[in-house]
This record gives sequence, structure tokens and C-alpha cells, in this order.
Amino acid sequence: MSRKLLITNATLLSESGSPLLRNQFVQIDDDLISSIASMNEYGGSHDARVVDAGGKLLMPGLINGHNHAAMTLFRGYADDLALQEWLHNHIFPAEAAAINPEMVYWCATLAAAEMIRSGTTCVADAYFHSGEAARAFSDAGLRAVVGHGIVDFPVPSVPDPAKNIETVAHFIDSWQGLSPLISPAVFPHAPYTCSPATLKKAKELADAKGVRLLTHIAETRTEQTQIIDPHGSSPIKHLHALGLLDKNCTCIHCVWADAEDLDLLAERDSAVVTCPQSNAKLASGIAPVQNMLVKGITVGIGTDGCASNNSLDLFREMDMLTKLQKLANADPTSLCGTDVLKCATSSGATAIGLDGLGSIEVGAKADVILVDVSGAHLTPLYNQDFLVYSAAGSDVDSVIVNGRLIMHARHIVSFDVNEAVDRVRSLAVQTGTLR
Amino acid sequence: MSRKLLITNATLLSESGSPLLRNQFVQIDDDLISSIASMNEYGGSHDARVVDAGGKLLMPGLINGHNHAAMTLFRGYADDLALQEWLHNHIFPAEAAAINPEMVYWCATLAAAEMIRSGTTCVADAYFHSGEAARAFSDAGLRAVVGHGIVDFPVPSVPDPAKNIETVAHFIDSWQGLSPLISPAVFPHAPYTCSPATLKKAKELADAKGVRLLTHIAETRTEQTQIIDPHGSSPIKHLHALGLLDKNCTCIHCVWADAEDLDLLAERDSAVVTCPQSNAKLASGIAPVQNMLVKGITVGIGTDGCASNNSLDLFREMDMLTKLQKLANADPTSLCGTDVLKCATSSGATAIGLDGLGSIEVGAKADVILVDVSGAHLTPLYNQDFLVYSAAGSDVDSVIVNGRLIMHARHIVSFDVNEAVDRVRSLAVQTGTLR
Repeated sequence: MSRKLLITNATLLSESGSPLLRNQFVQIDDDLISSIASMNEYGGSHDARVVDAGGKLLMPGLINGHNHAAMTLFRGYADDLALQEWLHNHIFPAEAAAINPEMVYWCATLAAAEMIRSGTTCVADAYFHSGEAARAFSDAGLRAVVGHGIVDFPVPSVPDPAKNIETVAHFIDSWQGLSPLISPAVFPHAPYTCSPATLKKAKELADAKGVRLLTHIAETRTEQTQIIDPHGSSPIKHLHALGLLDKNCTCIHCVWADAEDLDLLAERDSAVVTCPQSNAKLASGIAPVQNMLVKGITVGIGTDGCASNNSLDLFREMDMLTKLQKLANADPTSLCGTDVLKCATSSGATAIGLDGLGSIEVGAKADVILVDVSGAHLTPLYNQDFLVYSAAGSDVDSVIVNGRLIMHARHIVSFDVNEAVDRVRSLAVQTGTLR
Repeated sequence: MSRKLLITNATLLSESGSPLLRNQFVQIDDDLISSIASMNEYGGSHDARVVDAGGKLLMPGLINGHNHAAMTLFRGYADDLALQEWLHNHIFPAEAAAINPEMVYWCATLAAAEMIRSGTTCVADAYFHSGEAARAFSDAGLRAVVGHGIVDFPVPSVPDPAKNIETVAHFIDSWQGLSPLISPAVFPHAPYTCSPATLKKAKELADAKGVRLLTHIAETRTEQTQIIDPHGSSPIKHLHALGLLDKNCTCIHCVWADAEDLDLLAERDSAVVTCPQSNAKLASGIAPVQNMLVKGITVGIGTDGCASNNSLDLFREMDMLTKLQKLANADPTSLCGTDVLKCATSSGATAIGLDGLGSIEVGAKADVILVDVSGAHLTPLYNQDFLVYSAAGSDVDSVIVNGRLIMHARHIVSFDVNEAVDRVRSLAVQTGTLR
């Protein structure tokens, strides 16, 4: 017998620019949306659990296309620094001292709490000890694509880089098909930390296992030089030359992508995940997102790790994304609210290789959120653009992932958030990052 | 006998980059901070009202240096449009139909609710029917500099532009000295809506009454042309030629300010209020704020009216400001968190002509807020930068203005927020902006 959930008195999004649809109900059977109708047609609850939305907006959960969840440990640890100093003198040494399975589990759990409380129902994560991250997301009830990192130097979880592929293969084998929430993936870190041979092996592994490949690419101006000098081509062309660019590839950042690079991404049907706040905080630049959409590239939005953001709230990220596009193009019509919302929902899911997510329709996965739209800061409410320009993560009232209610009335019911907060504070003290 | 308020078990900000100071108490006598000490020295409450901060951060309330509060009516009414279309085909006609004393009172009250709930204790407002705005802020318990608008064409509150100066003089006379919360001011709108003669008269009025002059200046590239063509000088030099630039002048925007303009502002000791989100949403550009600070110019932060933002949350504004400076200067060390926080507090107060605000010290005005720092999204907590990069308006728990507790545990006690929400919704329907 199926598990039924009925959400009554909900408000739904409507056509772009139109008022919202009031007084609707949505039925969920197991993990899928099975019915959407007006409350006039509502015939009672029968055997279903009922959640009265009380006029709140029911919308697709947000998709965080790129995160290093365990980096919550370093949130605010080293701000306002030049990239190389930040990475080499602060983040890398702190990571070397701190990364272990326990740290990844608890710091990813803390990230899950922050993401759920700001309306994220799915994350594409990329880090090390990825089995622990997968376990954290699974325990939290959050959907996740979990990429295991590959770099050419020793890291705490893989002391011998020669064992990279073997380690990641083992991670994939352990998690593939285990949970409906978790999709393991391969994450070769970047072309400046992975040799061409390593990138090719990573791609072969992804193809052999039938999983997604996620990689950082074209993030900074420095990277351009690092790749163009030895390889004679832009970072994105370099990936293409090695055979990485196809529809199973997620290219993270693409800040320094020229028209030819974008044409290549479009032609190869590779997706982009843009991380506007991280790119801004590290002064990396503004990705040409409006141009990507014009060229038909699928674009998702990521927060990146919260050490370079320092927030995992996708509402902030949407607002920043559209405003940066308007500035970069000196055009206030650039990247309208409706397009941004799509990047954070349906396109965002496609960009990390997941289907059937990011929309409210019969047959879609029941990954949905309820947003309280009654606040002073959301009044009056003309159309859905308020989600991009006015709403905040704290307006999210309830979160359902795969048909399961994991937050209700802002209370996370799937795990103990306070335990995660306490554990991460202790870890920060233990590892010496917090005095 | 004085009114006493004791805030116990508070956390205070410390030196830049250092951990916060735990277990403090702060005593308020009437409108002033009278004592700050460790809880070890706490001797009980005696005749004071006690608010247990329970570890929350007690910090200066934020100063919103520029707003058109009544424009909450148009929040989200017309997004993603070119500036001229936005202004002439949407906002101006909607204002012509909607502006009246009742609208200004209720829409400013709604704005006050949003500001208080996101930690703002003082706003510099600039609009029409300013007596109603002053009444709204006074009733809400919010401190405000209230500028009455002056333009050379008829507006609903001043149908005959010849009566501008007289109308504003009457507004100033009515409010000067009436309430410790309200400082009336003169607001000549901009050099493209006010003739040189009008600008001079506005300045004479401000000087005669001893009040602040607030004006929009150098907001867009178009304005450069509009002023340079007839007058042969940049907008900022144009203001100077007319005698407006002195220490009693607040220059709002200054996006298109070159090195000579900035030198002039510094030399004349005129302050700047920057509105990064509005300038971004309208694609006006990025003000050279880092350079302003280097030149010693006092800079405050404003949200601008929420039709071009669309939020009055200064936490969002701080985050956007620093990230845009890093991008514009291609330098992640640009405008560090500490400097941004100063712009939103002590410098922000100076920028709108108010003294003794924006710091937690004995003798300062008791305009303070309590921020809940226990959330998952603020863990771990290394130093004060979290206020810029991670905190949100919704983390503000309590707000005290002029020694009076106006929000406690997120409940506004000074007025009925729901009434304001209902009134503004009705006004939006009445004026036809909301279907």
C-alpha cells in the first residue's frame, strides 16, 4: 500500500508575470506527485496524512548544483583574502588538519540542516570521504548527487593518488542503487589539479559506472593561463580535447568562458552550474549566464562551499545571480526572475543529471517546499518574482523530499540539528580553527 | 526618574577578526547606554526591566541611509525592465494614481515593519507627503531622517511646483523638535528633475532651518550626459558649483563618480550613501565605494525604495556591497567585512547627519539589536564577519530604539504589523496595481 500525503489550501505558481493560484491541493503517493486540483474538488483525506498549507506557496524544492558541504567547518574562518593566500595559507592547511570521516559526516549534516531550512531539496556535493557525505544526506533525508574528489596529490581520504580511481570506484559501487536519494558521481577537481591522464581516467570511470562527472572549470583568470600555456587551449577546450564534454558532464563555474567555449558546451550538451556569490567573494568574475541561456545551455545554480560564500541559502544566490547579470550586461532586462527560478529548479536538476525534479506536475518527484508568503517583506505579492528578489530562506516553512516531510513549521524532523551544531563547534575547537 | 533597561547574558562584538565577547550586560538609562560590564559584575536588576539576551549578540542597530519607504506598494510590481520604461511607463503612472497621505502612512508603516524585523533602527527616507511618513516612523518607534521631496513638476502632494519650498518649510516647522526620533530634511530629488535655481533654493532652506539635505546624484550613465551637456560639468561638480556640497549634504548613489568627483566630495566633507542592490537591479553600475573610503569619504548604505531592490534587509545589502566591490576591483581583499559593518552602523549614521549612533559604548544612543547567533547557518562562529556574509535579517530577535524595546523575540510590540499588511494589500487592489 502506498504512503499518501495531502497538502491542502496551497497556493501554486502560475504563468510568469501572473498572480499566484490560490486554494489548491496536491496529493503525493509515495515519492511522486499524483494529483493537483482546486480545493473545490477536494474530497477529504481518507487514508492520507494531511498537511494544511494555510495559503502558503507550494513550489519545487531548490536544487543546489554545487557544494562542498563539509566545508561548513570553515565558514567565516578566512574572509577577504586573495585567492592563493586563502587557499594555500588557510583553507588547505586547515583541511589537512581537519578532514576525516567524522568531520565530513557532521559538517555535511550541518550543511544539510542549513540547506533544508532554506528550501533546498537536492544538492550536488563534491568533496572527499564521500561515503560519509552520502550517509549524512541520506540520514538527513536530502536528495544528493555525491561526487568523490580526484586530485593528483595526496589528500586525507586518499593518501596515495595512484589509488584515486580505485577509491572512487569503490565509493560508487557502495552507493549505487542503495538509496533512492543518493546518486554517486565522479569529481575530478580541476584541470590544474588533475593531469590529462587523470581527467581521462575519471571520465572512463564515470562512463563505465554510468554516473555523472562533475568538474570545476574556467573559474579564474589565473586558471586560463595555467591551462592555455602548457596545453594551448582554453580550459573548456582542454576538457573537450580529453573527451570529457558530453551530456553527462557538469561544468562548474565557467566564469572565463568565451563565445567559442559556450558554443562548444552547447554543441556537446554539457551543463553549467554557476556559483555567483563564491565567484564574487573570491573576485573571480561574473559568468556569462545570460549568454549561456541564449545559446541553449542548461544552467544550474550552486552555492559552492560556504567558506567562499558564506551561505548555503539559494534564495540569496538567485538574487545575486540576476543582479550580477544585469550589471555585467549593463541591461536591467538581463536574466529575468522567471529564468533564474528555472535555473534553481528544473534546469538545476537537469544540470546535475537528475530527471523528473523541479516542477509541480503529476508524475514529478515529490521534492517540494512550502513558503510562507504572508510576511511584511513579501507584501504586496504581485507575481512569482518575489521568490528571487524579496524572499529569504527563512520564509521556507516545510520541506518534502521524495514524498517524505523532513521539515514542518521550520522544525527539521529527520534529524537532530542541535547535535550537528554542537558537533561542528567542537570539531572547530579540536582542529584549532576556533579559539 | 529615568527609565532603565538591563540586557543580561549578551554577547558583544570585539576587535576586528577576534572572537566575540561572551557573558556581558548592558544597562540603558532612558535613551542612552549607561553601562557595559561582564556578568561577573552584575548586581541584579533593582528597578530596571530585564531582557535576558541568552547569549545573543547585542550590536548597534543598522542604519538604512536611503529609502523611499512608501514604495513598498510597488514591491515587485514591475521587475526586470529598462530604467526609462520602468520609471515612465510603470512607476510614475502608478505613483500618480496611488500617492496620497493614507498610502504614504500605511506603506511607510509596512516598510517600518520590514526594517525593524531585519534589524534597522534608523532610516533616512525621501518621498512626498513626508509628514505622513514621519508620523508612521514615529508611531512605529523607528528613528528617521525624513526628507521631503522637491521636483520641478507637479506631484500629488505638491500640485504647484512654485509652492515646493513653502510646503517643505511647513513640513520642517511641523516636525522639528517634535519627537526625539524624527529629524526633518530637504530632499531635492536630482539635478535632472530640479533646475539649478530649485537646487539653490533647497540648499538655502536646509541651511536656514539647520536640517540635512539629501539628494540623488550621479546614479546613471544617462544622468552624466543629461548634466554634462547643458552645464559642462559632472553631476557632482554641478552640485558643487551651486553650493550644495558641504558637511550637511548626503549624496545618494554616486555610481558615476570619477577621481575628481571623489576628491571634491572628500574636500567638501559631503557624505555618500550607496545603494548597491538598487544600482545592480536597474543595471546602473557599481559605485566606487572602496575608493571613497580610501579618500576618507563617509559612506553609508541604503536599500533605496523596495521597488528597485526588492528588499529592505540591510544584511543582504552589506553582503552585496562587499561582493560587488571585490568584483569591480578584481580584488577579494576589497572592502572587508569590518568596513562594511561600519558603513551600516556608525559611518551610516554620520552619513545622514546623526551623531552618537551606531556603536555600543557608554553615552551612545540606545539604538541596539539582539541577533540570534545559534543557527546552523551561523555555525561555527569565528568572528564578526558572519554579520556580512552569513547572517540574515531573520536572525534579528529584538530591537531597541531610543531606549525603547520595539521588537522582542521577533514580535513587534510598537504597532500592529498585520494591520499594515492588510492595509497595503487593500491599497494595491484599490489602485489597480494588484489584480
